[in-house]
Amino acid sequence: MNVLIVHAHPEKRSFTTAMKTTVQQTFEQLGHTVEVSDLYEMNFNPVASADDFIDFDETEYLNYALEQRNALKSNTLSPDIAAEIEKVKRADLVIFTFPLYWTSVPAILKGWIDRVFISGLFYGGKRFYNHGGMIGKKAMLCFSLGGRDHMFGENSIHGPIEQYLSSIQRGSLAYVGFEVIPPFIAYHVPYISNESRQDILTNLEQYLQNLDNLSPLEFPHLENFDEKMNPKT
Amino acid sequence: MNVLIVHAHPEKRSFTTAMKTTVQQTFEQLGHTVEVSDLYEMNFNPVASADDFIDFDETEYLNYALEQRNALKSNTLSPDIAAEIEKVKRADLVIFTFPLYWTSVPAILKGWIDRVFISGLFYGGKRFYNHGGMIGKKAMLCFSLGGRDHMFGENSIHGPIEQYLSSIQRGSLAYVGFEVIPPFIAYHVPYISNESRQDILTNLEQYLQNLDNLSPLEFPHLENFDEKMNPKT
Repeated sequence: MNVLIVHAHPEKRSFTTAMKTTVQQTFEQLGHTVEVSDLYEMNFNPVASADDFIDFDETEYLNYALEQRNALKSNTLSPDIAAEIEKVKRADLVIFTFPLYWTSVPAILKGWIDRVFISGLFYGGKRFYNHGGMIGKKAMLCFSLGGRDHMFGENSIHGPIEQYLSSIQRGSLAYVGFEVIPPFIAYHVPYISNESRQDILTNLEQYLQNLDNLSPLEFPHLENFDEKMNPKT
Repeated sequence: MNVLIVHAHPEKRSFTTAMKTTVQQTFEQLGHTVEVSDLYEMNFNPVASADDFIDFDETEYLNYALEQRNALKSNTLSPDIAAEIEKVKRADLVIFTFPLYWTSVPAILKGWIDRVFISGLFYGGKRFYNHGGMIGKKAMLCFSLGGRDHMFGENSIHGPIEQYLSSIQRGSLAYVGFEVIPPFIAYHVPYISNESRQDILTNLEQYLQNLDNLSPLEFPHLENFDEKMNPKT
């Protein structure tokens, strides 16, 4: 299996970076090939703009999704985007390691999605959800946060954590066809002992070794909707 | 009233930018003062990093939230962040105008939140939700998307749009104390007639003129939770 880790943390010595290393080492020990996109180390540009298309005439009106399709056909995507797309194409499993910033991914990782998940390849027309461009590949979130476990859930102060993840897990990953594996979540990280942090890394290792036994998250099947995307009755 | 518009679109001639202009003109005509942060025009840096703190020793371990608090006290926040914070402080209402990218905000706007909503001012300790740092201020999303209205909702293919917005509306805006006004949403924008787009701008103008009559969204009150943030029974 080819694994791509997309990592986003500004501190190399952080616990989240240790999670990234654990993911990498665990899969390598299992005999898989691992590639890493360390977005901070790469100084990855997260801002979608006309500069993403080599041949784009800057005086023209920018329709970003349309230019993605044009640039894909003519091979004129910005090289940093094209390189990330090739990594995703090679991958059977994409794992995102990051600290939860404002109940979502850090901007540098949001911009990786904005720029890499191009129209015409990842999605387009009726190619989404179980017909999305990334069908056959898996994806999984692996993140740390400051809040405690009990602060999330149906009657908890912040409500279910799934609601906050839906723009990534459903609106992005499942939308383009990835099978989404339940996330690995490290709670309360800044406030716990080093021993507890070590336990989390051990749990993560076991989680990854057991990945094939986890049921993927459920998302809509296009077959249950008509041509206009109304539910079939 | 002082209004701050935070705008994020790579194309100045876009419909979303026309929505920004409508917001600006409508509030000015109502006699309010309007400030605009046009993030693309400002070339705003969305990537949270050690560079955000003028006096930070790069060999030290970076705890981003801790450094935000330190830099706030010692007045050593990066000037671009400090300038945005002053704009938010002056504002009674903050309106975000953007195209929905992957069911969320574009990375340049996510990074504005990541870097500007600093610990020690926007939140910290027990200062969140109805005790958040931005209590007394209002915020509202105003965005465009490609999908149709009927594709969102309880039994629709994408489910309720509110789920995708929760990391911004609840996890970010309400968390820091903003009263969140229901969003203004422009559906299916790339595929509709110019006349329909003009109608949306007219509707937006009326929406803004009627803002005081809209009920804000509901979020938790800390008084209903105990010291450990468990619900009081």
